[in-house]
Amino acid sequence: MLDVRLVPTKIKDYQAIVVIDVLRATTTMITAISNGAQFLVPVETVEQARIYRNDGFLLCGERGGVKPEDFDLGNSPLEYTKDVVKDKKLVITTTNGTKALAKAREHSKNIILGAFVNFSKTLEYIKKFDDILFVCSGNDGEESFEDTQVAGAFIEKLVLLKEYELSDSALISLNFWKSIKRPNFTGKHSRVLKAYGFKDDIIFSQQLDIFNTVVIYDGDKVIKGE
Amino acid sequence: MLDVRLVPTKIKDYQAIVVIDVLRATTTMITAISNGAQFLVPVETVEQARIYRNDGFLLCGERGGVKPEDFDLGNSPLEYTKDVVKDKKLVITTTNGTKALAKAREHSKNIILGAFVNFSKTLEYIKKFDDILFVCSGNDGEESFEDTQVAGAFIEKLVLLKEYELSDSALISLNFWKSIKRPNFTGKHSRVLKAYGFKDDIIFSQQLDIFNTVVIYDGDKVIKGE
Repeated sequence: MLDVRLVPTKIKDYQAIVVIDVLRATTTMITAISNGAQFLVPVETVEQARIYRNDGFLLCGERGGVKPEDFDLGNSPLEYTKDVVKDKKLVITTTNGTKALAKAREHSKNIILGAFVNFSKTLEYIKKFDDILFVCSGNDGEESFEDTQVAGAFIEKLVLLKEYELSDSALISLNFWKSIKRPNFTGKHSRVLKAYGFKDDIIFSQQLDIFNTVVIYDGDKVIKGE
Repeated sequence: MLDVRLVPTKIKDYQAIVVIDVLRATTTMITAISNGAQFLVPVETVEQARIYRNDGFLLCGERGGVKPEDFDLGNSPLEYTKDVVKDKKLVITTTNGTKALAKAREHSKNIILGAFVNFSKTLEYIKKFDDILFVCSGNDGEESFEDTQVAGAFIEKLVLLKEYELSDSALISLNFWKSIKRPNFTGKHSRVLKAYGFKDDIIFSQQLDIFNTVVIYDGDKVIKGE
């Protein structure tokens, strides 16, 4: 069975859950791990993140798209270069993405971060599962044009490999993606990010397979998957 | 602005709300009005419907797809022939559709029933509104493959007539529909209905423009719109 939550509610138990917040949390975390960060601890609040300050962590994330003043890094994947993150421990909190990870943790032992920047490697990793739920983090409780593209793109490839039952939301995401065909980041959150000066983040996040890493959440830390 | 709720939650105030439960509640109510029923009172529970029995109403609807034993009509549009419903007053309760109507009532003075059987007439009626929310009734809280097709089909036509801002969910529904192209009722609820012996209902509900009536909900009764 392939299933999708277009917004991160009503999450059920699944063999594997792919959490998608392509603009920008999952793209950013995948970039951090691909560039050599040891791990990221996703937390739900700015206050929880601050607790990690004295343990040598970089404080990362955003609220309303903007880095809290005392944080080291915001939520732009372009900040997470090798120079900055290699061998570092990071703690991260974002408006939608880290909340979706927290919800997913209650429903699966196999949580994978989904985005376009490492799409093929993730596909390779998830194809072993028979029951996969794609959780789109969405925009403050509403559907995300961009997240749904990632879900649809995975489903398009998976159904070529194996016979899956598809939920209605999987059918919607699949057929939606067939019409879009390639990453097209022009939804509401893309427009907000552009207005905030993050146009380069959108260009970056639309790229396919610039990393060859699969990134998973072990329920505690976001790490490189094997 | 054109917006869509793929499931009937987080409904906000809109100039007009189109409620869609194409399999089968809105198709059935449109059929009843088109075949001469005076009006239908949508109620949320079977018990509420029974109150109308002594006032000469036909009791209509379903629970789990099936007509309650003491009801006059189920939720199959094929039952609502001219012979049966002409000049009659009806009360109806269904699992998803009548609940979505009740929610819509709190957020708009212009509530229209959406389906394929009277698509063009409804399009003609709603094109005067600048802000329209399409509420898909869904399947017990999950997205409906079929309802989303109706929303996408309306949006495809509306954007040709006027310049609207599209929400992300409207972009998803529109592009999904562009890929589907014509009514294709093969989602989960279609399969359930088939298994229950309602295959003809699916064929009926997929038909475009067999009626030339617009059907609205005035907050009290479902009636013919002018």
